[in-house]
Amino acid sequence: MSLLVAGSVAFDSIKTPAGQLHDTLGGAAVYFSLAASFHGPVRLVGVVGGDFPEENRRLLARRGIDLAGLETVAGGKTFRWAGEYFDNMNRRETLSVELNVLKDFQPKLPATFRDTEFVFLANSAPRTQMSVLEQVRSPRFVMADTMDLWIQTQRQDLLDLLERIDGLVINDSEALLLTGAGNLVEAGKEILDLGPGRAIIKKGENGAMLFTREQVVPLPAFPVHDVKDPTGAGDSFAGGLMGYLARSKRLDGAGFKAALAHGAVVASLCVEEFGVRRLLEAEAGEVEHRFQRFCELLRIE
Amino acid sequence: MSLLVAGSVAFDSIKTPAGQLHDTLGGAAVYFSLAASFHGPVRLVGVVGGDFPEENRRLLARRGIDLAGLETVAGGKTFRWAGEYFDNMNRRETLSVELNVLKDFQPKLPATFRDTEFVFLANSAPRTQMSVLEQVRSPRFVMADTMDLWIQTQRQDLLDLLERIDGLVINDSEALLLTGAGNLVEAGKEILDLGPGRAIIKKGENGAMLFTREQVVPLPAFPVHDVKDPTGAGDSFAGGLMGYLARSKRLDGAGFKAALAHGAVVASLCVEEFGVRRLLEAEAGEVEHRFQRFCELLRIE
Repeated sequence: MSLLVAGSVAFDSIKTPAGQLHDTLGGAAVYFSLAASFHGPVRLVGVVGGDFPEENRRLLARRGIDLAGLETVAGGKTFRWAGEYFDNMNRRETLSVELNVLKDFQPKLPATFRDTEFVFLANSAPRTQMSVLEQVRSPRFVMADTMDLWIQTQRQDLLDLLERIDGLVINDSEALLLTGAGNLVEAGKEILDLGPGRAIIKKGENGAMLFTREQVVPLPAFPVHDVKDPTGAGDSFAGGLMGYLARSKRLDGAGFKAALAHGAVVASLCVEEFGVRRLLEAEAGEVEHRFQRFCELLRIE
Repeated sequence: MSLLVAGSVAFDSIKTPAGQLHDTLGGAAVYFSLAASFHGPVRLVGVVGGDFPEENRRLLARRGIDLAGLETVAGGKTFRWAGEYFDNMNRRETLSVELNVLKDFQPKLPATFRDTEFVFLANSAPRTQMSVLEQVRSPRFVMADTMDLWIQTQRQDLLDLLERIDGLVINDSEALLLTGAGNLVEAGKEILDLGPGRAIIKKGENGAMLFTREQVVPLPAFPVHDVKDPTGAGDSFAGGLMGYLARSKRLDGAGFKAALAHGAVVASLCVEEFGVRRLLEAEAGEVEHRFQRFCELLRIE
C-alpha cells in the first residue's frame, strides 16, 4: 500500500467543557496519518519550525509514518492554532491562528513519494493542493478536503482542483456554501457534477453521507458516550477511510462503504480523549473490533 | 395483530418553501394509523367535531383503520393546527392552534379495543395517556410520545407514565430537556433509568437512536431527495415502527432494529408530499421495497 497526506502539522491549544490542553501535537496531516496508520504505512508532506520536538517525530515514526516529506524551517516556528468548544461541543470558536512556517510553504515531494497510489490533500489553499497533486506521477485515487475560506476567496482554483480529483470530503455547511443547494442530498449530487466521482458530506455527531453516481449512502456516527474533544475528528475520519482503501484496494461501492465505516470508527476513537492521545493509545485490533461492532449494529434483518 | 393509537385527529394548515395546504386531514393519530396500516389493521382512539367529513372516515376505513374509538362531538369543531417551515425545513413555527373538541376530550375505549396488545400513546397530556393505558386490559407493548409542554408543566404525571410504559419516542431537544443531559447518548440512558426498557430519540433528517439496557443503535434517515412537507414525519416513524412490531411480534433486539428501520422508511415516504398524500398513495409493496433497499444501504461487508 502507498498512501500520502499533505497538510498541516501544528501545535494546538484546545479548550472544551471537559478540560484543556496547551501546545499539543495536532494538525490535519497528523490526525489523518495516525488514523490511517492502523491500516499500514503513511507518507506525510508538511512543514514545521525549529521548535518541533524530536519526541513528536519519534511518536509519528513509531506508527509507520514516513517523515521524509516533513520539511523543517530551522529558524521558523511551527503553525499554531487555538480554539474553544461550546454548547455540548456543537460550536467551535477559533481563538487564534499563527500560520508561521505554513505561510510560505511550497510542498516539495521527496522522490520516494512520487509513486504514491492513494493521495489525500488535507485542507489548504486549492493551488497548494494542486501543486502536491502534480508532483505525484500517476495516483490511483485522490481525495481532498476544503473549507469555507477557499470556497469564498479562491473558488475558481477550487473548481479546477475538483475536476482533477476522485473524491471530496466536506462539512455539511460547506457543502451548502459550495453548491448553493437547499439540502444536503441536492448538495452531494451537485458536487459530483463538479467533477469527483465520490462526495462525502460530514455531519459531525450525525454521521456522514456518501454520494456516487449510482447511490446515496447514509451512515450514522458510531455512538460515543463521552466526547472529550472533537478536534481532528474530520481528519481522522478521512484517515480511516483512505487507510482502509489503500490497504484493501476495494474501490467498488461495497468497499467504499466499508471504508466510510472505518472512517466513522476511528473518528469515534479520536474524540474520546484530548488531542491525539486516544489515537496514540489505540491498537489496530481495537479499531477492527469497533468496526465489526459497527457493522453488526447497522445490520438489519 | 392488534394495534391501537390514541391521539389527535386534526385539520392542518401547512406552509413550507415548497407550497401550502389548507385545512387538510392531519393529526398524530392519523399519520400514525396510515403509516402502521401498511402492516395490518389499526384501532384509532380520538375525537372530531361535526365538521369532520364522511370522506375522511372513508379514506381511513379503507386502509383498515377501525374508527369505533373515534368520538364525534356533533356541535363541536375538530382540532385545528397551522404551521410554517423555514430554513430548509429545519425550523417550524406554529402559527395557530385551536383545541376545539380536543380541549375536554376524555378518551373512552370501545369494549372491542380493550384487548389490544400493542398500544401507542401519541403526544397528549400524560394523564390522558395514562387513562387510555388503564383501559387496556393487559397490553404486551406500550410506547408513548411526549413534548416540551408536558415536560415543563406536568413533569410528575409524565414520570408516573414513564414507569408504566415499555418505550418512549422523543425528539432530540426534548430528550435533553427531560433529562438535563449534556448529550443524546447520556440522555437516552437516563430515560431508561426513568422506567421504559426502550428509548428512541428522533433527530429528524439525521435519523434516530435506539437505547436499550444492552446497546445503543444509531440509525440514519432514509435519504430523501426532495422534502416537501415534514409534518407528521415523527408520528409516521412511530407508526411504521409499531406496525411492524405488532405484525412481526419480534420484540428482541434484532426485531426492534428492523422496526426502527420500518419507521425511518415510512417517515421518508411521508415527507415526499404534502400532508398525508404520499401515505395514502403508497402501497405495502413500495414500503417493503424501500425497507429492503435501506437494509442493503446499511449492510457493510
